[in-house]
Amino acid sequence: MNAPRKPAAPHRPLLTNAARPATFNVTSINEHGETGETPIAGEHALTLFVDKEELLTLMTLGAAPEALALGYLRNQRLIESIDDVLAVQVDWEVDAVVVKTRHGIRDLAGKTAKRTKTSGCGQGTVFGDLMEDIENVRLPGDVRLSQATLYDLLNKVRLYETIYKQAGAVHGCALASNGAGTSEILYFVEDVGRHNAVDAIAGLMWLDRVGGGDKIFYTTGRLTSEMVIKAAQMGIPFLVSRSGLTQMGYDIARKVGITMIGRAANKHYLLFTGAERFDQGGSGG
Amino acid sequence: MNAPRKPAAPHRPLLTNAARPATFNVTSINEHGETGETPIAGEHALTLFVDKEELLTLMTLGAAPEALALGYLRNQRLIESIDDVLAVQVDWEVDAVVVKTRHGIRDLAGKTAKRTKTSGCGQGTVFGDLMEDIENVRLPGDVRLSQATLYDLLNKVRLYETIYKQAGAVHGCALASNGAGTSEILYFVEDVGRHNAVDAIAGLMWLDRVGGGDKIFYTTGRLTSEMVIKAAQMGIPFLVSRSGLTQMGYDIARKVGITMIGRAANKHYLLFTGAERFDQGGSGG
Repeated sequence: MNAPRKPAAPHRPLLTNAARPATFNVTSINEHGETGETPIAGEHALTLFVDKEELLTLMTLGAAPEALALGYLRNQRLIESIDDVLAVQVDWEVDAVVVKTRHGIRDLAGKTAKRTKTSGCGQGTVFGDLMEDIENVRLPGDVRLSQATLYDLLNKVRLYETIYKQAGAVHGCALASNGAGTSEILYFVEDVGRHNAVDAIAGLMWLDRVGGGDKIFYTTGRLTSEMVIKAAQMGIPFLVSRSGLTQMGYDIARKVGITMIGRAANKHYLLFTGAERFDQGGSGG
Repeated sequence: MNAPRKPAAPHRPLLTNAARPATFNVTSINEHGETGETPIAGEHALTLFVDKEELLTLMTLGAAPEALALGYLRNQRLIESIDDVLAVQVDWEVDAVVVKTRHGIRDLAGKTAKRTKTSGCGQGTVFGDLMEDIENVRLPGDVRLSQATLYDLLNKVRLYETIYKQAGAVHGCALASNGAGTSEILYFVEDVGRHNAVDAIAGLMWLDRVGGGDKIFYTTGRLTSEMVIKAAQMGIPFLVSRSGLTQMGYDIARKVGITMIGRAANKHYLLFTGAERFDQGGSGG
């Protein structure tokens, strides 16, 4: 007898679940000559292979290595769809993550030839191509963010920043919902590099088939060109940072029409671009 | 009539002097709805050519673009000696820096084939090779740093962090002398990425033929593997950061025997490695 038919579940790659411990204790001596234990952030080399071809080595905290590998391939436009990914397998014995695809990466050499060392936390990204992609980004115009929702998000983010508080050598990124005066954190990823953290969020969104159009992206890191490009690529209209921004981050945010808020902590913030989507006094979602 | 002969000055490449303004004002709206001017850090694409061959694009504040290009080539082990460099010419009209060498770069393709996206502020560096180089680093064992000298350095660094204070989106690096209870800042460079700042310092040291063995390296950024490798490559025995460190940064510091101090600000610090070179109570240089 056959079981009643269920709608086919969307394809999900086969994944390991190989997170590393986030912090390690080392001995230190403080200014009073006292010896103590200090937690420091993990940092691991993770070499990315796609269908047996070595792409590059990522240095990572290792908190979400499978999502990081997926998000890197997504954000670098090396793989078009999560449906093309069969498996993502991390093996820390050999510091490797192996991504198996259905069709391989077409023109890998061409796609990775022109690298850019991007600001601060760059990664040898295919910058020129990303800038061209940005021309095609259309962010939703009919969504709004209220000050009350922003404050709720900032309050909730505070509770998440565990590794930062302990070890102080990581950046955190979050994807959050945008409700009527409330915001829920859907994903929170910390990494030694903020570009790893944003890539891991992109990987999680891919896996769970979560769209960005009704979401808020939060980062502890600075809003450089590459951060703004990545948020726009993910289709997210709201970008919030605890830190400052750069001129090129600002220029790109204006160009793509993203609503960008910097220096956001407690009940302080600076709204830089996209004011038309922001309600200062209101609480509507 | 001939002028009396002077000893030959050491070779110095022909350089432009094309620093960009560090900050730009943009309009922002704060939480009270007040519109104001906020300084933000510059960020510029700068494509590096060596003898007409395009290497990569750096994203930089543009404060010391010639030194940045030189230091990048030095720290990536692409050029062996400053004597091989004939000219470094920055042209912001085309966002390019052109380095002319005497002999070119041997096996450029091989040297740049294996890239690593390093933690946080990586840059697609030739990581594997750098780790091998580290095996050959010998730091001086007969120099010492005193707490009094460290405090003097931290005090002087505070006065330098101009762009960070204004725009908050840059990292600063300094090279300082190690005197008897005093420290003088020889170079201070800020950039949107801390790896750019450390590369620019390496370029300045090359140009001025300054050795690292009797110096202190200070950074506002985190001490990841790559930061520790670069300090060691420059032969600097003392590495001081206002921020935290990562596990791999710690492991490499122990391996090369660098004296590493983190969380250093005001009169607080944590000494992590190389305690044998540090005088906690003393003031001797």
